[in-house]
Amino acid sequence: MQVIADLCLIPIGVGVSVSREIAECERVLAEAGLRTKLHAYGTNIEGEWDLVFAAIKRCHEVVHAMGAPRISSSLRFGTRIDRAQTMDDKIRSVEEKLGAQSQ
Amino acid sequence: MQVIADLCLIPIGVGVSVSREIAECERVLAEAGLRTKLHAYGTNIEGEWDLVFAAIKRCHEVVHAMGAPRISSSLRFGTRIDRAQTMDDKIRSVEEKLGAQSQ
Amino acid sequence: MQVIADLCLIPIGVGVSVSREIAECERVLAEAGLRTKLHAYGTNIEGEWDLVFAAIKRCHEVVHAMGAPRISSSLRFGTRIDRAQTMDDKIRSVEEKLGAQSQ
Amino acid sequence: MQVIADLCLIPIGVGVSVSREIAECERVLAEAGLRTKLHAYGTNIEGEWDLVFAAIKRCHEVVHAMGAPRISSSLRFGTRIDRAQTMDDKIRSVEEKLGAQSQ
Repeated sequence: MQVIADLCLIPIGVGVSVSREIAECERVLAEAGLRTKLHAYGTNIEGEWDLVFAAIKRCHEVVHAMGAPRISSSLRFGTRIDRAQTMDDKIRSVEEKLGAQSQ
Repeated sequence: MQVIADLCLIPIGVGVSVSREIAECERVLAEAGLRTKLHAYGTNIEGEWDLVFAAIKRCHEVVHAMGAPRISSSLRFGTRIDRAQTMDDKIRSVEEKLGAQSQ
Repeated sequence: MQVIADLCLIPIGVGVSVSREIAECERVLAEAGLRTKLHAYGTNIEGEWDLVFAAIKRCHEVVHAMGAPRISSSLRFGTRIDRAQTMDDKIRSVEEKLGAQSQ
Repeated sequence: MQVIADLCLIPIGVGVSVSREIAECERVLAEAGLRTKLHAYGTNIEGEWDLVFAAIKRCHEVVHAMGAPRISSSLRFGTRIDRAQTMDDKIRSVEEKLGAQSQ
């Protein structure tokens, strides 16, 4: 089962800056061979369900190992069985509708 | 690694009412032996990471099997390594502070 | 427009324990006259859109005033125009389906 | 108070495709003069709190007016009082750490 997910991980108890931990998660996700795209409030992730969720677990493990006593994540994830759809497909689908509106 | 999670699963393309699918997810989570608590915008889940996420995957599989072509879920999940904490502990901790304020 | 929302507010840069800030948000929401229900990963809120979102803004203001330099919240919120539905209705609707399954 | 938000709006009861509604929300957010960035699981939004939340309310109103009987949104939103930070700053901050790692 393919999944498109969006992860926002927040280390708690490490101070105000969390970019070092987020960067480490980017590295974990990339090493897992997943397609990802960082944005200003999370990271899009695309791949096979088990690989995606194993990598997310690894993110929590790694951020704890960096010293964060507590982590709270928010995740969106979507699956569909009617047809295949990539992250790029989703964006293109909206942009096509926007193009049609502006004509 | 213990996790406390909060799942809000939305079947898409099945019409306006989604309670039949949510009820089925409750059954899946209960059958997995997880402690859960339904609320008005999701379900609290507590347990070992792998069991919690296996049950969440099963929810997507079961809701697709019920006929939903597409599912979008939003999940919060927290882990901590400084000390053990249950769902009840989290609520009690806030309520104690509320009690202290009102005295 | 009525809204049912679910707020999870995370103060960042105040240490590992965040229950003092969450308790203060409970007080803010109650003072706004909103129906609320605390759970293990957030708070259900029900009310008129403008009142709900004004109270959520006040939560951020108050938690900053308590000393949190940074806050990250995750919010679910739902509206419907086909019929009125309360937080209790949502839970009852799922529980009725669960009851029907177990018979 | 400046806020950086991330909105994922799901119309319920309109069928499997939701891109027409999402495109309309993009238009609403742009007309509100807000800086936005569409990604594969939502839209980053940056601006003054009241303007951002007024535009989000307008998204719900417009999508209902398009025929959606029910909407469920998930929103992340962050504020900070220690320093100003834009969406671009957040991404750059992570990318700098990634660059430092790979050297």
